[in-house]
Amino acid sequence: MMTEKKLSGAGLRGQSAGETALCTVGKSGSGLTYCGYDVADLAENATFEEVAYLLFNGELPNEKELASYKAELFAMRDLPPALKSVLKLIPKETHPMDVMRTGCSFLGNLEPEQDFSEQQQAANRLLAAFPAIMCYWYKYSHEQVEIDCVTEEDSLAGHFLRLLNGTEPSAQHRRVMDVSLILYAEHEFNASTFTARVCASTLSDMFSCITGAIGTLRGPLHGGANEAAMDMIEKFESPADAKEKMAGMLARKEKIMGFGHAVYSTSDPRNVIIKAWSEKLAAENGDTSLYDISVACEEFMWESKKLFCNADFFHASTYNYMGIPTKLFTPIFVCSRLTGWAAHVMEQRANNRIIRPSADYIGAAPRKVVAISER
Amino acid sequence: MMTEKKLSGAGLRGQSAGETALCTVGKSGSGLTYCGYDVADLAENATFEEVAYLLFNGELPNEKELASYKAELFAMRDLPPALKSVLKLIPKETHPMDVMRTGCSFLGNLEPEQDFSEQQQAANRLLAAFPAIMCYWYKYSHEQVEIDCVTEEDSLAGHFLRLLNGTEPSAQHRRVMDVSLILYAEHEFNASTFTARVCASTLSDMFSCITGAIGTLRGPLHGGANEAAMDMIEKFESPADAKEKMAGMLARKEKIMGFGHAVYSTSDPRNVIIKAWSEKLAAENGDTSLYDISVACEEFMWESKKLFCNADFFHASTYNYMGIPTKLFTPIFVCSRLTGWAAHVMEQRANNRIIRPSADYIGAAPRKVVAISER
Repeated sequence: MMTEKKLSGAGLRGQSAGETALCTVGKSGSGLTYCGYDVADLAENATFEEVAYLLFNGELPNEKELASYKAELFAMRDLPPALKSVLKLIPKETHPMDVMRTGCSFLGNLEPEQDFSEQQQAANRLLAAFPAIMCYWYKYSHEQVEIDCVTEEDSLAGHFLRLLNGTEPSAQHRRVMDVSLILYAEHEFNASTFTARVCASTLSDMFSCITGAIGTLRGPLHGGANEAAMDMIEKFESPADAKEKMAGMLARKEKIMGFGHAVYSTSDPRNVIIKAWSEKLAAENGDTSLYDISVACEEFMWESKKLFCNADFFHASTYNYMGIPTKLFTPIFVCSRLTGWAAHVMEQRANNRIIRPSADYIGAAPRKVVAISER
Repeated sequence: MMTEKKLSGAGLRGQSAGETALCTVGKSGSGLTYCGYDVADLAENATFEEVAYLLFNGELPNEKELASYKAELFAMRDLPPALKSVLKLIPKETHPMDVMRTGCSFLGNLEPEQDFSEQQQAANRLLAAFPAIMCYWYKYSHEQVEIDCVTEEDSLAGHFLRLLNGTEPSAQHRRVMDVSLILYAEHEFNASTFTARVCASTLSDMFSCITGAIGTLRGPLHGGANEAAMDMIEKFESPADAKEKMAGMLARKEKIMGFGHAVYSTSDPRNVIIKAWSEKLAAENGDTSLYDISVACEEFMWESKKLFCNADFFHASTYNYMGIPTKLFTPIFVCSRLTGWAAHVMEQRANNRIIRPSADYIGAAPRKVVAISER
C-alpha cells in the first residue's frame, strides 16, 4: 500500500505537476512569456512561424533558419487523398473540433511517427496541414466545394484565410491572424496541454498526444469561449442594449464567457493586444458597432463584477470582422496551440516519468458477489 | 502570481489527484477492487457485462437488469457504413491502437454525444461497437474480407471471438475472454484513465475523452506490455532456453515487459487468475510449451530480481492459445478498459473542477526580441 499525499485543491489547482522551460503565466511583471519573451513583444515584433520555431528550438530563428523552416512547412500543406475522403464522410452538423480530432488521428494512421526522431517532422506536418483539414471539411460540407489545399501564401495565417475565403487576404487581415496565432500558441499546463503531457508520458506517439489535446480543448470550460462570446454579443443591438441584457444575465446567474481566468488574477495580457486589432478592423470596416458593443461588455463586467476580458473576448469581434464563421473560432485555436502542445510533448519525452497519480477512495466497503438470482 | 505547492514525486506518483468510488488498487488485504468487489470474486462469479453494469451503476445487476442491458448492447453492435468506409481507408501497416483511436473519434463524428444526458448511451455504443471496429479493419486490411459486424453471440467476449475467427468459439474460450475483459476493466487513476478525466474536466464529450484515453494507453509504458511479453516468449524454445536468454537480457540491461508494477509492490492480483486460465488452455491445446516457458520466465524474474508477473504476462500465452494475433492484444485492452474510462468520465462530470495544474519554470530569463536581421 502506498502512502498518498493529499492535495488541498481540487483539479490540482495551484499544484506544480512538473517543470517547463516553455512558458510563464501570471508571474508578476511580465504576464505571459514564451521562452523568456513577453507575448506582447512577440506579437509586435515576430511572426507566428518565428514563435513556432522558438517553442520548438528555444531560440528565435535567424533569417536563414526562418526561411528554411517556412519552406519546410510550405511543402507539407497538402492533404493525402485518403484524408480528404475521410473529411468528406464527416457530416456538416459535426462539431468542427471533432473534425480536427478525427483529421489529426487519421493523418497519424497514414503518416505515423515511427519513432521520436521524427517528432519535429510530425509536429511540422500537423502545423502545415491543420488549416487545410479545417477548411477542406468546412467548404465541402457547407458549400459542396472541393478546395485546392495548396496556396502560394507565404504564411500559415495567410494560407488559412486564403483557403477559407478563396481570395487573397489583405495585408492587414494576414497580420491580424498572425498575431492571433501568436497569442494562442502556448499557455503552460492548461488542461489540453496537460492531457498532451499525460499521453506523452506513456511514450505514446505525437498524433495520439495532439488528438487527445484537441478533444480536451473542445470542452466549453477550455476552448470555445470566443465562440460563446460571439454568440452573446451578436444578440446585442447597441452598447446600451448590451449592458441591459448582461445585467439580466447576471441576475439570472447565467454564465458569461470571455471574462476572468483560472490563473490570471488582475488582467489577461493578451486582451489589450487583440482589442487594439479589433478596433482597427472596426475602423476599416466602417461599421464599428460590434467593437463598441464589445467595449460596453468589458466596461459592464468590470464595473459590476470586477471581471476583466480574457484573450477570448475581443477575439470574437476580431474574427467576425475578418468574415470567419463562428464555428471555426476554436479550430483556429487548435492551429495555433498545436505548437505549444507539441513543444510540451517533446519536453515531457526529454525528461519523462509516467504521470500516474493516486486517488482517494470514497466508494463501497469490501463486499462479496451475491448470486444473480438472489440480487 | 499564484503560490505553487511543490510535489515531491515526478509524474504525480503517490499524489492524490481526486476522489473515486470505482476502484482501489494495492490496498492491503484485497489487491484490486471494483466498487467494493474483489476482482478475483468478480472473475469467478460474474460476467463482463455484469462488471460493466457495476462500474456504470455502482451495483451489480439483477437478472432483469442484466437481460435489459445486454439486449441494449446487442442492438448496438453494427457499424455505420461511413465508419466502415473510413476503416477500409486505414492501411494494413497502421498500429491497431491508432485504428481504435480513429474509429472512436469518427464514431463520435457520426453519433455525437449531444449532451450529458446521453453519456450512458455513448459509453454503451462504444462498448458494443469496439469489437467490430477492431475486427472489421483487421479482416479487411489483412485478409481483404468485409465481415458482417453482427453475430448472434450472447456476450461481447463471444462476439469478439466470433468476429475475429468467423467460427463459433468454444464455451471455454468465451469464458476465458470474458474473464480477461473483467481483469482489464478498471484500474483507478492510471495514465489513460487520468487522461480521460483531464479531458472530461473541461466538460468535453465522451468520444473525446475515450479517444484521448486510447492514445494514452497506446504508449509502451502503459498498454502493450502483453504484446511485448508475447514477442519475447515466442523467441524462447524451452524453459531452459528462456532462463538463459533472459539472463542475457538482464546482463545487457534490456527492458523485460510484463513484470513489476507502478502501484503493486508484492504481487498483481490479476496474475494468478489469468495464469490459471493459461494453464487450462495449454492442457486443452496439448502443446504446453508456451505455458511452460512462461512459468520459467516467472520463476527466473522472481529468483533473479524479485519481480512478479503483472496482469499482462500470462495474458500473452492465454491470448496466443486462443489464436488471437499479437497486434490485437492491446485493442482488446481498449474493449475492456473502456468501461472504467467511461465510468471515470461520468464520475468526473458529477463533481467537476477543471484539472489545470501549474508548473515550475526552468527556462530562459526575461529577454527582448532582437530584430531578425541581427540574430
